Amino acid sequence: MTKKNRTMALGAFLPAPGHHLAAWRHPESHPQGGLEFDYYRRLALAAERGMFDLMFLSDGAGVRTAYKDADELSRQGRMVHFEPITLLSALATHTSHLGLVATASTSYNEPFNIARKFSSLDFLSNGRAGWNVVTSATDAEAKNFNLERQAPHADRYARAREFMEVVTGLWDSWEDDAFQFDKDSGRFFDPEKLHILNHQGEHFQVRGPLNLARSPQGQPVIVQAGSSPDGKDFAAHWAEVVFTVQQNLEAAQEFYRDVKQRAQDAGREPDQLKVLPGVFTVVGETHDEAEEKYQQLQSLVDPVVGLGMLSYQLGMVDLTGHDLDGPLPEMPAIEGSTGKQNVIVQHARENNLTIRELYLSIAAGRGHRFLLGTPVEIADQLEEWFVAGAADGFNVMPDMLPRGLDDFADLVVPELQRRGLVRTAYEGTTLRENLGLHRPAHRH
Amino acid sequence: MTKKNRTMALGAFLPAPGHHLAAWRHPESHPQGGLEFDYYRRLALAAERGMFDLMFLSDGAGVRTAYKDADELSRQGRMVHFEPITLLSALATHTSHLGLVATASTSYNEPFNIARKFSSLDFLSNGRAGWNVVTSATDAEAKNFNLERQAPHADRYARAREFMEVVTGLWDSWEDDAFQFDKDSGRFFDPEKLHILNHQGEHFQVRGPLNLARSPQGQPVIVQAGSSPDGKDFAAHWAEVVFTVQQNLEAAQEFYRDVKQRAQDAGREPDQLKVLPGVFTVVGETHDEAEEKYQQLQSLVDPVVGLGMLSYQLGMVDLTGHDLDGPLPEMPAIEGSTGKQNVIVQHARENNLTIRELYLSIAAGRGHRFLLGTPVEIADQLEEWFVAGAADGFNVMPDMLPRGLDDFADLVVPELQRRGLVRTAYEGTTLRENLGLHRPAHRH
Ligand SMILES: Cc1cc2nc3c(=O)[nH]c(=O)nc-3n(C[C@H](O)[C@H](O)[C@H](O)COP(=O)(O)O)c2cc1C
Ligand SMILES: Cc1cc2nc3c(=O)[nH]c(=O)nc-3n(C[C@H](O)[C@H](O)[C@H](O)COP(=O)(O)O)c2cc1C
Repeated sequence: MTKKNRTMALGAFLPAPGHHLAAWRHPESHPQGGLEFDYYRRLALAAERGMFDLMFLSDGAGVRTAYKDADELSRQGRMVHFEPITLLSALATHTSHLGLVATASTSYNEPFNIARKFSSLDFLSNGRAGWNVVTSATDAEAKNFNLERQAPHADRYARAREFMEVVTGLWDSWEDDAFQFDKDSGRFFDPEKLHILNHQGEHFQVRGPLNLARSPQGQPVIVQAGSSPDGKDFAAHWAEVVFTVQQNLEAAQEFYRDVKQRAQDAGREPDQLKVLPGVFTVVGETHDEAEEKYQQLQSLVDPVVGLGMLSYQLGMVDLTGHDLDGPLPEMPAIEGSTGKQNVIVQHARENNLTIRELYLSIAAGRGHRFLLGTPVEIADQLEEWFVAGAADGFNVMPDMLPRGLDDFADLVVPELQRRGLVRTAYEGTTLRENLGLHRPAHRH
Repeated sequence: MTKKNRTMALGAFLPAPGHHLAAWRHPESHPQGGLEFDYYRRLALAAERGMFDLMFLSDGAGVRTAYKDADELSRQGRMVHFEPITLLSALATHTSHLGLVATASTSYNEPFNIARKFSSLDFLSNGRAGWNVVTSATDAEAKNFNLERQAPHADRYARAREFMEVVTGLWDSWEDDAFQFDKDSGRFFDPEKLHILNHQGEHFQVRGPLNLARSPQGQPVIVQAGSSPDGKDFAAHWAEVVFTVQQNLEAAQEFYRDVKQRAQDAGREPDQLKVLPGVFTVVGETHDEAEEKYQQLQSLVDPVVGLGMLSYQLGMVDLTGHDLDGPLPEMPAIEGSTGKQNVIVQHARENNLTIRELYLSIAAGRGHRFLLGTPVEIADQLEEWFVAGAADGFNVMPDMLPRGLDDFADLVVPELQRRGLVRTAYEGTTLRENLGLHRPAHRH
């Protein structure tokens, strides 16, 4: 094993009560945790104990589902949870090193509001805010925002690009030292250091300035997870952390090379964009124990829920009427984003899976890489990808919370630390410092 | 003095570093407090020590100003501060009884996002969230949201009314006991207890459901401060707490009667709408000490800032070119909202004030009632209005923070408690319980 002088970046992706589709039904799970602050506080502290760079909260602008009716929906285990920015604002004051990354959609927000909220979170956390930029992906969300269906994929990304120009422009409304609060002269700020954005674009006309000073990190860290060509170009221009769904080493290496190359082509240092594939984890003290944990969760998957999740992951493809014990039918083309559908279909074809086997096989990580075993086994697999140029780190998706996160923090991380692959103390106090990202210079 | 078996509702209106226009220039002030969590934590704890029902944060969707250029603007003391919902989310976990009321505009937000954020805050605080509903009032804000100027007053209120229908509808997406998390049957919730809103209106088409359960208070408390006829009608239908600018007892009594009558006409119990006039306070152990504190702040008012504030308070009326030591010119009619302009103009005419005298006279409370003196003197004045049917309580606006809030909590409140006018212990843990507001029944 090669010792590297760089260490892995670790994200903790923390949907209550865990990533496995049936986690909420596990006897030890606490399904109401999604709306309990103490539950999340405990998770955040576990992530900090485990030297994670950041915790990550996904988000939808509504209940995203492919279930046909309330009866089917009622069997789904996630659905109601804290709004991420409010939750992370509260967690900011109970943690001291953990990055706090919330998802928010460029399709259903205004840039001025988003710029403010993330800047405010950056102040509350003394420089630990991150924004996972998404364009959203369902008509269910569009219907909460005056639309019958969502805008076409290309339009969503066009809006997202302009959205980023506005938001980053607003974040530079004031130079870092604009506010001197000079009581004697009566000057609150130096007028030379105020910059009015006056953005006039196709989607947005935004004057500015932002009503917050430049935040501790200069800008919150930009996170993104697009995998379409538009998504990867977006990442190349804007993202500092990229989450991605990768099943096998070669494809992951190819993605890694591709997105770093695109960043370089966009004039950026490739090192300033960190690639974090998702890994679904089941940790046991022995391999058998991990396997047992997994089988217990698998046995709790309701076929209705499994099929609904599969349909959602394939891009809202309706699978009703197909034999669960027969093969996956041909997929209709979905508009725009096809990355995840491809990964899943390929996985089904390669392994000759029936529909039931397919949904069971992704009930855990929904297409993400699946790691099950002892701390040493899991560390081996993480190290393999890390040294092979497939990842700068990983977005860890525990099967069940808090147990799965505790296991990772207390069993896997020490093993990675022994190998010099994970820090033993935080390098700094801001998310940028810990990830090794530059603090962006003010544009003026 | 009549003992009442009801007690005053107390709001603490807490813009850093205090309400006086020149508070930030005071030698003891901490002007950077608007972006420091510890500063606000200290304020929230002082408000809780003082048995306040709630703390209140105003908000603008941008820097609201009537200053002509950056040079003038740079002399203004407020401008950059936390976004209120994020700040209150953080404060929620450091307080246990204080209501947390954030301002948010119906003109520059989407109802789905607002419903989520306040519901999330209600969960984080275990039932202490309130929303101060505003329609915004400046073109400066409109310019941050794709507009050259704001929509006409009547249109803003029309949108606000429909906005409330959507938001309250979303808050009733799920019945209180919808989520039973039945692990055995695999039902996360009872499908009979889900209600899809399907709102189809003029401004909004919103399907729902909200991705949060019904919150601890059923609904966050609705606060409002409109004073136009549209504003008062809005209050009568929706508001549970009304803030108001009142200078004299008779007008305050008239406002109180009017808005309670309107509530009754709208089919509500008048008692379920609490009227809280704002009171700007300067507290001293002796009257002279209070007067000295006040004069020190007055001496720090920059004429440029005074004039800009006056112009803003009059509804963006340009006063340049007028002699500061001459009378206020005739006011141009402002569209829609005229309540505050009227109060100020009347005040100037009645007291024969020059422009300079006028801005100095409102540099403290910006038109709000002005209370200066000893704890006994201030308690007398609060009691007078309270027993005379002019107020259910007060929104306290300290001259300078934290000093002015500490003085109110530690000197004025004990005096009010001796008179039986303020609680000595919180009645409950939710804002509704403390204000004596019903928890709204679910609509289905
Ligand atoms: C780890 C991970 C987390 C994601 N979280 C969200 C999310 O919270 N909300 C969302 O709308 N999309 C989320 N996505 C989806 C992506 O943001 C993106 O929309 C999707 O990968 C399709 O991208 P594309 O359209 O560029 O192919 C996530 C994707 C990944 C890999
Ligand atoms: C105590 C108080 C606080 C207020 N806070 C805000 C605020 O934070 N943001 C805002 O846009 N307007 C605020 N206002 C203004 C009112 O919400 C309202 O827009 C204004 O009184 C005009 O109402 P009208 O148009 O019905 O006359 C406040 C008013 C009062 C009395």
